[in-house]
This record gives sequence, structure tokens and C-alpha cells, in this order.
Amino acid sequence: MTLLEVPFARYLAMNKVKKMKRYHVGKAWRRESPTIVQGRYREFCQCDFDIAGQFDPMIPDAECLKIMCEILSGLQLGDFLIKMAWKDVRHEMVVKKGLAPEVADRIGDYVQCHGGVSLVEQMFQDPRLSQNKQALEGLGDLKLLFEYLTLFGIADKISFDLSLARGLDYYTGVIYEAVLLQTPTQAGEEPLNVGSVAAGGRYDGLVGMFDPKGHKVPCVGLSIGVERIFYIVEQRMKTKGEKVRTTETQVFVATPQKNFLQERLKLIAELWDSGIKAEMLYKNNPKLLTQLHYCESTGIPLVVIIGEQELKEGVIKIRSVASREEVAIKRENFVAEIQKRLSES
Amino acid sequence: MTLLEVPFARYLAMNKVKKMKRYHVGKAWRRESPTIVQGRYREFCQCDFDIAGQFDPMIPDAECLKIMCEILSGLQLGDFLIKMAWKDVRHEMVVKKGLAPEVADRIGDYVQCHGGVSLVEQMFQDPRLSQNKQALEGLGDLKLLFEYLTLFGIADKISFDLSLARGLDYYTGVIYEAVLLQTPTQAGEEPLNVGSVAAGGRYDGLVGMFDPKGHKVPCVGLSIGVERIFYIVEQRMKTKGEKVRTTETQVFVATPQKNFLQERLKLIAELWDSGIKAEMLYKNNPKLLTQLHYCESTGIPLVVIIGEQELKEGVIKIRSVASREEVAIKRENFVAEIQKRLSES
Repeated sequence: MTLLEVPFARYLAMNKVKKMKRYHVGKAWRRESPTIVQGRYREFCQCDFDIAGQFDPMIPDAECLKIMCEILSGLQLGDFLIKMAWKDVRHEMVVKKGLAPEVADRIGDYVQCHGGVSLVEQMFQDPRLSQNKQALEGLGDLKLLFEYLTLFGIADKISFDLSLARGLDYYTGVIYEAVLLQTPTQAGEEPLNVGSVAAGGRYDGLVGMFDPKGHKVPCVGLSIGVERIFYIVEQRMKTKGEKVRTTETQVFVATPQKNFLQERLKLIAELWDSGIKAEMLYKNNPKLLTQLHYCESTGIPLVVIIGEQELKEGVIKIRSVASREEVAIKRENFVAEIQKRLSES
Repeated sequence: MTLLEVPFARYLAMNKVKKMKRYHVGKAWRRESPTIVQGRYREFCQCDFDIAGQFDPMIPDAECLKIMCEILSGLQLGDFLIKMAWKDVRHEMVVKKGLAPEVADRIGDYVQCHGGVSLVEQMFQDPRLSQNKQALEGLGDLKLLFEYLTLFGIADKISFDLSLARGLDYYTGVIYEAVLLQTPTQAGEEPLNVGSVAAGGRYDGLVGMFDPKGHKVPCVGLSIGVERIFYIVEQRMKTKGEKVRTTETQVFVATPQKNFLQERLKLIAELWDSGIKAEMLYKNNPKLLTQLHYCESTGIPLVVIIGEQELKEGVIKIRSVASREEVAIKRENFVAEIQKRLSES
């Protein structure tokens, strides 16, 4: 993932945009052979968020990590951790900031223990580091970042990973990857080794590569592996025997009798006009069983039914697909009743 | 517009999909030279809705017209009319249904008067047509369509246009175009000749062109000219002196003093965690004037302000950008107050 940063950087360079914050959902293509059984096709869908511009250090970086946490929490994928690539941070310290390699490695010793905000504090308490001016400067950005992550309430979600190094060479500085933490396999539940579901980092040099004069625009961003996440969610739902819905249809309009197309059209127009997502079969005279099967297979929760009897009595039948319970509601109240049920569920 | 039907048809053929209902927002490219001054670039954004599958006549067609009306009404673009291309309907009657050309032209005489549901009824009352078996059959689909459009409450939005013929040759049968009705030019208002903003129709042959065995899947759909509509909306807002917003940010977090980055980060995290769209400048010590100017130029309606005095008193100042009014709210209540103001506006 994260390949959409290249067209984004090219866009900024070509249009001389110096500042931008945007998200994008689009197609991306991977170079390596796809592993189709795991849902990894060559063409895939990815969601990117990026902040471009010259800003004070670590503020946009912290926002990107906050957004990554928000998205992964919001999707309710279970526990996750964001791992920062130590190798890339070390490279930045030594090559860009001129920190002595042995000082960087001393920081690395700490990193090896465990990551996060407590790590940074421990390092500042170590006189070998806190009395070393170079080390203090090298630690400055990390300290800032973890300070901001603490204010955002997400410092406990972030740790360093000594083995992690991202495959793309245009990253500079802090690089990270989000991994789902595997829940213990329960009876009947298939084990899921899901790995990385999101990644990101800073790429300050990429825009300059596309600019004719080499003008740089610092960037930081993240990518969400939309298809990987879909695959995980689908697998989990299948394991639980839940249906994966592909539409948001809330109500189906059905009839048990022939020659009720006109009434169905009237009902569905009323539902649509009230902002309710409704569907019906495009048949003049569909069988009731076909209509109810359709609701079960597509996961539509409610059915409104109109037939001769309902028409005579001035009512509409509302059926819950799950419980198969049916109640007759006065024709003039049926939209309100549907809205009530939908807001309760 | 409507070029996205080609990849959709190819998708159906290649994946042997026999039935589908979907919408899509994506990029399309026009062949003719772009008129950039009118906002017509070669690459543009278009929204498509299509129903594919073998269904009873005119039900999906009526739904497409209903959706077109819903979208155009929902966008509040002013009065509009959907014009059906008579030439294509005549072609369908004569070539596909075998109606004698002179009978089709007699229908055409009626169409020339005025379109819509009353037209169809008038035709059925004319003995030259109602006593002609061929004409009755030829009129059958039109009658059905207008019956359904009446049930959907949109028959008055549809009329025939004798001059209209769509440029694409894969359309079959009913083809239509939505045009905005120009409001009389008022003093100070620039005239807007906007023409077509949406189009659609039936294309029963297109899928078969991509299927190796020529298997057909009947399709009907519509396209919304998203960029054309954006251009119109922008022009109107400019005329009225309204600001065109490019973000949905609801609240800006500002400070009048130095060294308040930490407090701003805490406040913005609280707002984000409550689902409020908030922004701040990525600067350690931005000037208050810069922050307020930013809100005015981007149209952010509310500012929350934290400074030394607010911190001491345990309050947050909420400022309305439009009225410049400021009130101090207890720190623990500021999110609720923001939510209240946002729900009221």
C-alpha cells in the first residue's frame, strides 16, 4: 500500500501547491504477484490521507497517527498496535541530524526494551543520553511526537519495532505500520493472521523529485488497506454465521397477489420521498416466496406488504424478516412506523 | 456525459453478471475539444446510476427518471425539465416494433403539441390511433411509462423534445436529458445558459457487444454532470457574494498567546473524539489575526479560543466568525455548547 503518495506528490509539484490536507479513496496497483486466496489482487482499493506543507515539527505527524487510530477503532476490528520502524528513525538521526552512530545505538538499546512514551522519558533520565547534547537534540523530535500523542490520548497504541523497515525508499524519518493483534483462536473460529492493515510516514523528498526546480514540500500521510480490512471483516462475519450485506436497503415492498404493481409503486415512492432506502422486484407479478427469499438473501430487515385485504382495510402489513412477525398498520401511519423501527434498530 | 456506461457494460459482460443495480462516481474523458472557460475540461467527474437485467417493461426506466428528479430537486438547482428524444422513440417504434412510419408520424404530430401524460391520454382518445392495433401496441410502452411516472409523482417533469437526439449510437428506445430552466435575469445577476445537467436512457445492446457469445443484458441508466452542476452552483454563489467552501470544517481551535500548543491539541482531540470536524494551524505560536483570517477565508463558522485568562478561569471562549460575538463557556460544557450551535444552524 501507500502507492497513492506518488500521484499525490506529482500533483502538488505540477500545480505548485505548497499546502494541502486531503483524503482520497482510489485504485492502486501492486507490483508484486498477487496472493488472490488472501484477497490480495493486483488492482486494489486504498484510502489515503495526507498533509503537505511546511509546518512546525511533529504536529501533522501526530494528527496522522490520531486519524489512523480513529479509523481502526471506528471500524471495530479489535485490538491493534501501531509499530514505528526503528531502523528508519535511526537513519534519520544519524544521516540527517548527524548523531553519532553509537549514541543512536544506545537509544536503540532502550527501544529494544519497549516502545512508547515511557521509553522516551526513561531515555531522558539516563545520564549517558540526557547529558549528551547531540543525543538530546536527536531525541527532541521523538519527545515532541510522544508528547502530542499523549495529548491525543493514543500514546499507548504506539510502539517501536526493531525489525520493521518499509520497502519504499522515499520515506524520511518516522514510518509506521498498524497491525491487528490476533485474538486467541476460539473453538470453531478460524485463525486469522492478518498482519498490517494500515501504514504511513513522512516523505519530505518526494514532491521535489517531480518539481522541475526541485522545490520540496514536506509531506506526511497514511494509507488504509481497505480491501484487506474488508477481507478480515468478511471472514469474521462468515465465522460468526453473519450475513455480509452488499446493499443498505432498509425496506422491501412486496405483495402476495397479482396486479398490485401500481400499489407497490405508490408505496415505494412514499418511502423514497421520506428518505427511506426501499426496493422492490421489477416484475409485474412476482411470487411472495420469491420476494421474501430475496429479503433473506440480501439481509433487508423490513418488508411492507400490500394485498387485496390490506387495500380493503386501509392498512399496510409490516413484517420483520428476522422474527417473521407481521403487524397491520393504518395506511397513513406506515411510514412513521417504519421510521420508528429503523431509528430503534 | 454517459460515457461510463461503456466500462459498466464491459464489466457485466466479462464477469457474466446478469443483474445489477449500482451507482458510481468516477472520472470520464470527453473526445471533443474542451471549453475550459465554461468549466468543461477533457477529464471530468461524473456520477452514474444504472439498472441492468431482464425485467418487466418500463419499471426500471421509471425508477431512473424518479432518481434523476430526486437528485436535481435535492440539489436545489431551481426548476428543471426532463426532455425525451422523440426521434429515438420513433426509431424504436418503427424499426423494432414494426409500426408503420405514417402511424409513428401521427403520434409525432401529438408529441409536437406538448408532452407528458396528458399527451398519451389524448392519443388514446384519437380513433385514428386507438382503433389501430399497431399504434396501440406501439403506444403500450409509452403508456406504461407515463402511468408509472404518474404514480411516482413526476409526470409533470417529463416532456418530449422533437429536436433532441443523443449523440451516442448504443442507446435503444427511451432517451432523455435534463435541462435547467433559466430563471429571468435579475439586476446584477449574470445570465446563465446552462443547458443539460443530466442524461440517460436505455442501452439494451451494449453488453452484448462485449460478450464473446453476444449474450445481451438489458440496461437503463442515467448520468449526472457533477462538474457542470458544481460550476453552476459556484457561479450562483459568486453572484450572490456567498463563499464557496472547499472543506466541511465546523470549528477552529485558536489561541491569542504563545505556548498554548498543548492546550490547543487537548481541545482539538476533545472535539474530534465527539465527532466534530475541527482544525487548527500546525504552528507552535500562530498570530491570532492569522488564525481568524484563516477562518474567514475558508468559511469556518465557529472558533474556540483558549488563552491565559480562559485557562485561569476554567472557560473556553466560543466565537461566531460571522457576527464576531464571543461568549465564555465553562470548560466542561464547551463541547455540548458547540454541538448545540451546530445542530441549530
